[in-house]
Amino acid sequence: MIFIGESINASIKSVAEAIIKRDEEFIKNLAKVQAENGANYLDVNAAIGGRNEVEDLTWTINMIQEVVDLPLALDSSNSEALVTVYDLCKYEPIINSISMEQKKRDTLLPIIREKKCGVIALCLEDGGMPKTIEDRLSVAEKLMQELNFLPPEKIFLDPLVLAISTDNEAGRTVLLTLEKILEKYPDVHTTGGVSNVSFGLPARKLLNRTFMAMAIDRGMDTAIIDVRDRALMSIIYAAEALCGRDRFCMNYLKQYRAENLTW
Amino acid sequence: MIFIGESINASIKSVAEAIIKRDEEFIKNLAKVQAENGANYLDVNAAIGGRNEVEDLTWTINMIQEVVDLPLALDSSNSEALVTVYDLCKYEPIINSISMEQKKRDTLLPIIREKKCGVIALCLEDGGMPKTIEDRLSVAEKLMQELNFLPPEKIFLDPLVLAISTDNEAGRTVLLTLEKILEKYPDVHTTGGVSNVSFGLPARKLLNRTFMAMAIDRGMDTAIIDVRDRALMSIIYAAEALCGRDRFCMNYLKQYRAENLTW
Repeated sequence: MIFIGESINASIKSVAEAIIKRDEEFIKNLAKVQAENGANYLDVNAAIGGRNEVEDLTWTINMIQEVVDLPLALDSSNSEALVTVYDLCKYEPIINSISMEQKKRDTLLPIIREKKCGVIALCLEDGGMPKTIEDRLSVAEKLMQELNFLPPEKIFLDPLVLAISTDNEAGRTVLLTLEKILEKYPDVHTTGGVSNVSFGLPARKLLNRTFMAMAIDRGMDTAIIDVRDRALMSIIYAAEALCGRDRFCMNYLKQYRAENLTW
Repeated sequence: MIFIGESINASIKSVAEAIIKRDEEFIKNLAKVQAENGANYLDVNAAIGGRNEVEDLTWTINMIQEVVDLPLALDSSNSEALVTVYDLCKYEPIINSISMEQKKRDTLLPIIREKKCGVIALCLEDGGMPKTIEDRLSVAEKLMQELNFLPPEKIFLDPLVLAISTDNEAGRTVLLTLEKILEKYPDVHTTGGVSNVSFGLPARKLLNRTFMAMAIDRGMDTAIIDVRDRALMSIIYAAEALCGRDRFCMNYLKQYRAENLTW
């Protein structure tokens, strides 16, 4: 599994406050804790309404890179900010995220094309949510066409997770879309906003964890999550072992011995 | 989901002791607690080495039926015991379990054929464990042929869950076999000894729960489990909602409101 730590995100109030106050320790600590808990990438979102995203993102990235040696997922749709911070990144980042929406393509394709970096690509286009498996696959195909200058290993397709509370079939649609995407494009990565699935329901963490296990079974290999969530990480390690994606269950046993599992 | 409560089983020491001592309260309580926790069937196993299974099973069934109104899963490979207790059952029971092993067929087919009752049918035959998906499907086909006097709704096919600790692909094989079985026989029920998957590994409950979620996603609709295990029941309710098998998430919400979920 590729873990993208989601916690440095200015949509979280405490993170926005830390960015505004230039609270170095807060951001550095969040970076370190996520690295210690297994993150392979750190997502960075410093978009705060009414502020200068270029400056905030630059500062946040500098703080992170002072304390951890991990590549970043640049969570921004501001092309100026992306162009400015790209060259600050010590390791090749992923851009989070493009879609088939015209505005996203206009903003983000130029830098992705120039840098040939990794990108999360969301199965979404102008004119409404793709509802069926076929609708999503059709958007996935357009994305693959649009990103054909990248090797598939740099593309992280997101089938667009929606809430089962408004559409009972929403979970199943995503699971089957994952499988279809991987049949057609076996070398891409797949990811998703798993927690969207539980929107509007109680005990959301139970639903999110359960859905994560199913998504791994269907082939998802990249999780954008709070890597500090032990119960979620535990079910991911278990799921990988159960799907034959953890040779001799070595990683599962390692996490158990390190007392990282809860059950 | 169809829940078969597994707890009245003489392979559990305390249960064997209760049967030997004719401890009515112990057995009645186990029956009641399972009924309260959602069991649709109660499995009954009273096989204790060196004792008279006919008498023990008769007594156990009588105790259960004094306190709960549920059909039973008769967990015995003793044809005399089955013939004797069958007519004691207030509701049509399931027989647990037949396989393609000659000895099982000789013992159990006559009563199944006579009563036309439900049966758990394990994908196992003489001459060794079926290893691949194709091997298991082939045994499933033979079982369906052998049981062709039953409507498919009375057949609970078990794809034979084996340990991932000895074969990394064991979990995946079961999941894909489930799907293949249901493609071919959409009206059968499917079940499995889910906890076998974690044999030889630590934190078994984590693996079992996670595997249960995946198995439900792949179509399993019958769980032979300890229905008192809140964490396991919670993930099952979540899995059914996520797979579109719980209309408007009504049962999930009901279990949440009844404070039956843990997360």
